[in-house]
Amino acid sequence: MAPTMDRHLKEESSSESQSPVVNLEPPVKSSPVLIDGISLNGPALDLHAAESFIQQSMAIIMEDAVRKATDVREKVCEWRSPEQLKELLDLELGDGGEAQSKILQRCRDAIRYSVKTTHPRFFNQLYAGMEPYSLVGSFIIEALKPSLYTYEVAPVFTLMEEAVLGKMIEMIGWEEGGDGLFNPGGSVSNMYAMNIARFHHCPDIKELGLSAVPRLVMFTSKECHYSVSKAAAFLGIGTKNVYVIPSDERGKMIPKVLEEQIMAAKNEGAVPFMVNATAGTTVLGAFDPIEEIADICEKHNLWLHVDACWGGGALMSRKHKHLLKGIHRANSVAWNPHKMLMACLQCCAFLVRDKTGLLQRCHSAQASYLFQQDKFYDVSYDTGDKSIQCSRKPDAFKFWLMWKALGTKELECRVDRALAMARYLAQEVKRREGFRLMMEPEYANVCFWYIPPSLRSMPDSPEFWQKVHTVAPAVKERMMKEGSMMVGYQPHGDKANFFRMIIISPQAGKEDMDFVLDEIHRLGKDL
Amino acid sequence: MAPTMDRHLKEESSSESQSPVVNLEPPVKSSPVLIDGISLNGPALDLHAAESFIQQSMAIIMEDAVRKATDVREKVCEWRSPEQLKELLDLELGDGGEAQSKILQRCRDAIRYSVKTTHPRFFNQLYAGMEPYSLVGSFIIEALKPSLYTYEVAPVFTLMEEAVLGKMIEMIGWEEGGDGLFNPGGSVSNMYAMNIARFHHCPDIKELGLSAVPRLVMFTSKECHYSVSKAAAFLGIGTKNVYVIPSDERGKMIPKVLEEQIMAAKNEGAVPFMVNATAGTTVLGAFDPIEEIADICEKHNLWLHVDACWGGGALMSRKHKHLLKGIHRANSVAWNPHKMLMACLQCCAFLVRDKTGLLQRCHSAQASYLFQQDKFYDVSYDTGDKSIQCSRKPDAFKFWLMWKALGTKELECRVDRALAMARYLAQEVKRREGFRLMMEPEYANVCFWYIPPSLRSMPDSPEFWQKVHTVAPAVKERMMKEGSMMVGYQPHGDKANFFRMIIISPQAGKEDMDFVLDEIHRLGKDL
Repeated sequence: MAPTMDRHLKEESSSESQSPVVNLEPPVKSSPVLIDGISLNGPALDLHAAESFIQQSMAIIMEDAVRKATDVREKVCEWRSPEQLKELLDLELGDGGEAQSKILQRCRDAIRYSVKTTHPRFFNQLYAGMEPYSLVGSFIIEALKPSLYTYEVAPVFTLMEEAVLGKMIEMIGWEEGGDGLFNPGGSVSNMYAMNIARFHHCPDIKELGLSAVPRLVMFTSKECHYSVSKAAAFLGIGTKNVYVIPSDERGKMIPKVLEEQIMAAKNEGAVPFMVNATAGTTVLGAFDPIEEIADICEKHNLWLHVDACWGGGALMSRKHKHLLKGIHRANSVAWNPHKMLMACLQCCAFLVRDKTGLLQRCHSAQASYLFQQDKFYDVSYDTGDKSIQCSRKPDAFKFWLMWKALGTKELECRVDRALAMARYLAQEVKRREGFRLMMEPEYANVCFWYIPPSLRSMPDSPEFWQKVHTVAPAVKERMMKEGSMMVGYQPHGDKANFFRMIIISPQAGKEDMDFVLDEIHRLGKDL
Repeated sequence: MAPTMDRHLKEESSSESQSPVVNLEPPVKSSPVLIDGISLNGPALDLHAAESFIQQSMAIIMEDAVRKATDVREKVCEWRSPEQLKELLDLELGDGGEAQSKILQRCRDAIRYSVKTTHPRFFNQLYAGMEPYSLVGSFIIEALKPSLYTYEVAPVFTLMEEAVLGKMIEMIGWEEGGDGLFNPGGSVSNMYAMNIARFHHCPDIKELGLSAVPRLVMFTSKECHYSVSKAAAFLGIGTKNVYVIPSDERGKMIPKVLEEQIMAAKNEGAVPFMVNATAGTTVLGAFDPIEEIADICEKHNLWLHVDACWGGGALMSRKHKHLLKGIHRANSVAWNPHKMLMACLQCCAFLVRDKTGLLQRCHSAQASYLFQQDKFYDVSYDTGDKSIQCSRKPDAFKFWLMWKALGTKELECRVDRALAMARYLAQEVKRREGFRLMMEPEYANVCFWYIPPSLRSMPDSPEFWQKVHTVAPAVKERMMKEGSMMVGYQPHGDKANFFRMIIISPQAGKEDMDFVLDEIHRLGKDL
């Protein structure tokens, strides 16, 4: 495939340039050069020693951070309080260095006391599990240190990002194509959405800022991710200019109220510019009704952004993609393959339907030292000016490599299995004494209460719920100290603290679901 | 040190919970559970196969992405045009997966055609070189997939971030301490600075947005990083509200003009809120006079941010830290250890002198599902609400590990050597026929022109400079196609295209400086 090329520059260039070839051994110092008393001859880094250290570390990483971390017989975490851990880790940074053997021990300790988020019984966040292809992709990225601003510095990863974005755009259903970029987190994707939406609404904002335009307002549901509020503050929109639309009992935005609020905002003299619909809310896993919201956005000429960071995984499943029905009508989408699809952290795409270069126009600053126009290749591959970052990691590669290895079908199977597993857990919760399901899961969030025997005969009352409210934190404390599993809990609106299980990884089986319920009971039955 | 604990949960909990222990082998399917036709028994991932794949990949990474990538006898890059590379890489993502052997080959190819930014002759960006400790730190992070929002999910890395920030604050000279966080890029750090500065100026902005306040303006030099302009657009300030202060012939902001512009802005009815001083500009490596700027900021009650992303490394050097004299008077500092100090990408700190929780108040959104207040440990260790991100990588660990291994003294030696090397290169440029130094380097940027023999007898004139302008792009094209080294070029103001060498890594010696000049001449002598 690739033309054979001589990879040894030594032979190629030394005859012409007469420059001494730098060996890995420091060269014979026939003419030592000193500046400010510092010797400048040869490399000052012992590459052999460096490689030997990396090699030894890899063995530790393989054993402790991969094999043991994913072994169901091992702990999810070995809990230490901040005070204990500070003492164990000896965090101080001093003038002198430490021997490699000491540093290797520090690596072991860092791994030992870290939470094993890749463990089959880690159900605490919207990500979980160990995906080997993606992991290898991330190791390659770390070793090569590429940055995605220009094709010349990151040729391979620039093209891979384009390929992955193109495929994700296809899954969303934008038949004419689109644009996008990977960025460090769904929160940042949501910021991109707001910035591009307001720029689309009024391009002058880029130069003149918001003090020159009327009050812009946006709409999102009560159940949306907290990053929407953070983004509104950060982008100068203001948190009060995010109009919060109530959700129904399942956590879905109520479109009728959305339209009423848009009208009300206009009557106030505010200028609505976008609606954020959530596909897969953080706590309940709810999907806003995108079709109905899209109708309203079209009618009122508002940018529709779909925050599908968590729910986007369902687009891989023919069985479940109906949850996002209408997403092809969105103007932009945030979708994190590091969540349901298990790409290594972070792997987050922001996608726009626009194909006229809106993303570039909105964010460009045309730095002359990076984006020279007199380069010898097609500079449309220098994608960095679409971004708000300068250095940007090629996160798409992690997803590309696993997608190549697994294929779309296996990704689909995994999503289908995770969602079936959530249904199994919900059945068990309903079946078992002392557990109460909050609602049937639509996605991979299963929300439920554990009622210890002491409370089971109490009638539902404010007093009962006050007592139930204290159960999950107490069980969580014991769970962490035991290290047997990690499951999150939270209050929500007027609901007392409940557990929220998130099911993603194929490492978990129905036995692990049974274990979770058994273990919660074991830990909390005396409460 | 650590109390001995039984790491085998199997024995600990199975007697009580009666749950079947999940073996690495799928369990005997005595009672198969099917939901939606999907078998839920046991893990659906073959962990043995996964581990074997990771192990094989590690050998490839070690050989191709570490050993060969850093070998001076190998190419810095194996150039392919986008069209050629697309064909070589077979980027399409399909329904079916691929065999592990195929994926291993894809890893080799991705490495082969990527630029080796860790090569001793990569001088193209403000980062370079291979730092083994930091690299191992990043591998550990990738394997463990931590996220820094809460102590419970990232105990080790939360404490390490605190330790590193504390030490950086000490190097800055904030004797009373401070606050901060690591984030994905210096551009983002500069955004944090602008947001916190305006929040400090007027806390109402967070809720009400910029449309409710008078026009805010900020000041920065002509030579500042382009992220300042990007940030002003993104944060709703507007690029025109960034007042650009001219720099002197060395690239340093002229304080007298700064003060005049502040007065002029006030007379226009605008509200100045911050000054961005740059410590180490991108192209010239210039340091703005912080002391004088701090005087002006104090007088006018303006937030002083120092963008020391690039120049911060000099704080490690007793010999060179005078370049940042006065930085202890700044209200905030951006400093990227991934640049001069060689931590793996990305490793970027944003630091504030404030100790009253300003960072938290400015960015918090108090998500109840993450930042529960009824946790059993001190929730002040849940630092996530200071951040605009949700998932956040523990980049500080990469720096912590290398700092432990090398000690402050070795970091200092490296900075001193890089800056001495820059002076050696400048001497050589001046000494050699056909090279012209733009200015004596103050830091690690060496800017110079190459004048091919055909132009050497021409007098300095617009025509001469027009011709010189075409030399660097032509040499760069040949350099890339040869793969022998990477050095950046750019125009700057009214200056014709020139080379900008960035010297960082101890892998390079004076022989590599000689090589660069020889090679530019070899590649460009016929132009």
